[in-house]
Amino acid sequence: MKRSQTFIPTLREIPAEAVVVSHQLLLRAGMIRRLGNGLFNYLPLGLRVFRKVENIVREEIDATGCLECKASVVAPGEIWQESKRWYTMGDGLLRMKNRLGQDLVVSPTNEESFTALMRYELGSYKDYPISVYHINTKYRDEIRPRYGLMRAREFTMKDAYSFHTNPDCLDAAYRRFGDAYEKIFRRFGLTVIRVRADSGAMGGSGSEEFMVESAIGDDTLILCPQCRYSANEEKAACAPDPYTELPETQEPCTKIPTPDVRTIEELANFLHTSPKAFIKTLIYHVKDSELIDSEFVAVCIRGDLEVNEAKLAAVLKAAEVALASNADVEDITGTVVGFAGPVGLTKVPVLADESVMLMHDAVTGALEKDMHYIHVEPKRDFTPAMVYDVRIVKAGDICPQCGTPFYSKKGNELGHIFKLGTKYTVSMNMTYLDENGQKQYPLMGCYGIGIDRALASIIEEHHDENGIIWPMTVAPYHVGIVPIQYEGKMKEVADQLHDDLTACGIEVLLDDRVERPGVKFKDMDLIGLPIRLVISDKKLPSIECKFRSEQEATLIPLEGAAAYIAEKVHTELKRYNA
Amino acid sequence: MKRSQTFIPTLREIPAEAVVVSHQLLLRAGMIRRLGNGLFNYLPLGLRVFRKVENIVREEIDATGCLECKASVVAPGEIWQESKRWYTMGDGLLRMKNRLGQDLVVSPTNEESFTALMRYELGSYKDYPISVYHINTKYRDEIRPRYGLMRAREFTMKDAYSFHTNPDCLDAAYRRFGDAYEKIFRRFGLTVIRVRADSGAMGGSGSEEFMVESAIGDDTLILCPQCRYSANEEKAACAPDPYTELPETQEPCTKIPTPDVRTIEELANFLHTSPKAFIKTLIYHVKDSELIDSEFVAVCIRGDLEVNEAKLAAVLKAAEVALASNADVEDITGTVVGFAGPVGLTKVPVLADESVMLMHDAVTGALEKDMHYIHVEPKRDFTPAMVYDVRIVKAGDICPQCGTPFYSKKGNELGHIFKLGTKYTVSMNMTYLDENGQKQYPLMGCYGIGIDRALASIIEEHHDENGIIWPMTVAPYHVGIVPIQYEGKMKEVADQLHDDLTACGIEVLLDDRVERPGVKFKDMDLIGLPIRLVISDKKLPSIECKFRSEQEATLIPLEGAAAYIAEKVHTELKRYNA
Repeated sequence: MKRSQTFIPTLREIPAEAVVVSHQLLLRAGMIRRLGNGLFNYLPLGLRVFRKVENIVREEIDATGCLECKASVVAPGEIWQESKRWYTMGDGLLRMKNRLGQDLVVSPTNEESFTALMRYELGSYKDYPISVYHINTKYRDEIRPRYGLMRAREFTMKDAYSFHTNPDCLDAAYRRFGDAYEKIFRRFGLTVIRVRADSGAMGGSGSEEFMVESAIGDDTLILCPQCRYSANEEKAACAPDPYTELPETQEPCTKIPTPDVRTIEELANFLHTSPKAFIKTLIYHVKDSELIDSEFVAVCIRGDLEVNEAKLAAVLKAAEVALASNADVEDITGTVVGFAGPVGLTKVPVLADESVMLMHDAVTGALEKDMHYIHVEPKRDFTPAMVYDVRIVKAGDICPQCGTPFYSKKGNELGHIFKLGTKYTVSMNMTYLDENGQKQYPLMGCYGIGIDRALASIIEEHHDENGIIWPMTVAPYHVGIVPIQYEGKMKEVADQLHDDLTACGIEVLLDDRVERPGVKFKDMDLIGLPIRLVISDKKLPSIECKFRSEQEATLIPLEGAAAYIAEKVHTELKRYNA
Repeated sequence: MKRSQTFIPTLREIPAEAVVVSHQLLLRAGMIRRLGNGLFNYLPLGLRVFRKVENIVREEIDATGCLECKASVVAPGEIWQESKRWYTMGDGLLRMKNRLGQDLVVSPTNEESFTALMRYELGSYKDYPISVYHINTKYRDEIRPRYGLMRAREFTMKDAYSFHTNPDCLDAAYRRFGDAYEKIFRRFGLTVIRVRADSGAMGGSGSEEFMVESAIGDDTLILCPQCRYSANEEKAACAPDPYTELPETQEPCTKIPTPDVRTIEELANFLHTSPKAFIKTLIYHVKDSELIDSEFVAVCIRGDLEVNEAKLAAVLKAAEVALASNADVEDITGTVVGFAGPVGLTKVPVLADESVMLMHDAVTGALEKDMHYIHVEPKRDFTPAMVYDVRIVKAGDICPQCGTPFYSKKGNELGHIFKLGTKYTVSMNMTYLDENGQKQYPLMGCYGIGIDRALASIIEEHHDENGIIWPMTVAPYHVGIVPIQYEGKMKEVADQLHDDLTACGIEVLLDDRVERPGVKFKDMDLIGLPIRLVISDKKLPSIECKFRSEQEATLIPLEGAAAYIAEKVHTELKRYNA
């Protein structure tokens, strides 16, 4: 392809709208443009990379035996009402009405569509297992889209859905997708961290995320340097921490006045002790829990720790948890906010974090204004209805597998694999007849990869101060040819090399513009093609070959150059695709 | 591909939801399923055809030098407000608000998006010409979606946009797209009729449609058997028809009482003459006309003819025309509805159809209840402000090019090419600096092809009572292999043939199911693969080869069968792709 025949509007300056490097380089390299808030158009160069990313995903997903389909982007609200996500998914779900007043959504994911599709097709156990996927447009109405393709409103996702009659079969598919994902990210040249994840609004049981480390990551990853335990903070567990401020006490639990003391820090000062001696008690409002009937729960945790609401929702099997309103807290505790505690609390069930059960001689609110209990012994003075790990785990906390302190990183999610179980098949009434003619609900798995975000992440990992450094597998063209001037002998050589390489199946961009060599070099570095060939009449019959990832160029003879370069390209492709 | 490894849920019965053959066969062959009203999911077999149709379009559009991009499906309402189509496009445009209250649309077409994209990129005459396209999801909120993929709400369209600094350049691009379209439809095996078209809500000047004949067509095509004049009824012209009921009269225009007479037929009876002697006068409400200032216009036409509102809107350069309300008619004519006429009408401009100017001794309403004028001579008794051809042309009317009577057909639009002119560049303020540093508005063209509708149309043209008969170019697989039983020697031969053909680049579906041969044959006919190979141990070492388009099978030797079949496939591909 000649540069003059395509459209690559490179930019010298960093656009003000872009704060992260992938967004800056996507704009500067003429790959994308903004259409609206969180809405982007791909230009020809960007689309070439997009298609390569998409096709690598397609090849590896096809190789698992998963079958490509295409669901509609706009879906009936009706099936989202059936699954209940119409009600639970919040404002991220873009809802609308058509001219007849029917509810519609622009699909943010397609569990509903594929369950609705398959429930009339898979009536017998003989129809199982089956996996289907599509690579299609999605929309999530992010409050604050940012970082270019990293968090756009409209995006393209590969989403796959598997259907099974038994958990072993689901486990096998889940592992197969996990393996395919490892291969896909290897082919992208991306370093991913595979972490245990919360299954969030998707529902279901086991799930893992494939994350890339990123300073602008939305997620915090908790990682063990020793045994490779890795988890999203939303899901991370840690070893029980045997620390206690004080030894076990025989003193009875005693109510004391604590006038004008509200925060844990004030209380610690007042009592000359540390926050670790306090049992903090928070009242949560709980939506649609499958575990408890109560609309509220009191969560107790050691004073220096924080409650992880994702873990809390998960253990309660709840659609949502949120701190209760002051009015509700006052109604439940019988006093003003700030004096909740587990001792004597009867209106709602008490859930204690594991940390609480290791404490002794503790302090807690006395359900009375300006009053606290001291000498509190868990089990002796109160018995929680439930004990779970619901704390936020941080760097420095202890790995539950090997006892090593954790470190943490910020990351962005590129892929996600889930065991959904029967969440959607039950709510949407998808059944099959088993070997005995009995009606059963099939199990499901679902598996997503964000195409645009993967593309942006490749740039985040592969660039320098001059521009992008594409891995060969996803480069928009394999080779760039820059004649110092596109005329005479240099033009002739450039055209011939372009044609010879193209005949070898190599994708070539020839810069045939009338521009200073410096401009052409800068542009080539910016758009980041893996190999650059410079044709200068001073060097002929040699030409200069430079890899974008290396500093130095080498001279190679023009004779046989096409075959030599083709070999280099194929070696590099093999290295990634191995 | 083995049948057991993919998912082709064929149906024996015709689903009740489907009334046209393409819809029936798409469902029965397990290619698509309905998700909602006008919303469809593609299954693996359907998607294979979809991709082939899409890729043929891509190859031919790429070959014109047009550059593939990808615009977002959801677009900001803002740019639709700029172009004014937010206000003029009616309920077909699916509008919504996001969580921040911002207006959005699900794009039904992308003039706005591509103009918004390009207006910041093409600032100099040196940046022109350029053509860009994408193949992407669209949504039109049809009141009554029907006929399966023929008129769905969500669909995929290839839409291209060209930008120019002069009309010759636009004309050249328009011709290039027209030629590419001819080639695309040839490769689909589709017989298309290219007709002059109205440019409707798209705006602009010249446009042509590529139609397929269809009993369920939305459009009426006016065709000349002699000179090949062809036009959509919305746009069709005809030779002025010199017929007049009566000769020129010297009698003065005279008002006569016509009590209790309302319709033209009643009046014809009352005056013992024919409807052709009457000047029918209709009051239209006109929206945003660039030609007239008035909000209303009186349209006169010979009594036996009908007004073509698309042509009327086109000559008035109006966004919309619609019959005026009774109240408005009464206000304008000064009397009750039924007595409008051009003589003495002063409140609104009069537009006469060409037919009126050839009439003599005519009858018309007298702007007074129960009164008509007779002996009306156009020009003598009234002078219309405008004379245009605004009649509906029908079969039997006379070709304006060669004088032969027209015939007509029903058709469906598959493709459309438009010269938009400056409609969008002016309204959206896209400018460039010309050679003299002067600001200019570029000219645009736009060019669409419906992918799903093309797919359905191929089935409409290529099927028989047993199922689909795919042209080789778009067949989901080139060859189907049916072993009478998938075991022993037959299994061995079938597998080997599958692998040999695949190695030759031929796409093969092997029916490895445990089913009666009759079931497998019926299914193969239904899904319509071009070549069927039957392997029966009674016939070995020969196998049976049957073309789906032919009645008789032939026996061919197994030895060399793969090469022989591969040759047949390639010959057939070449025939369509030539």
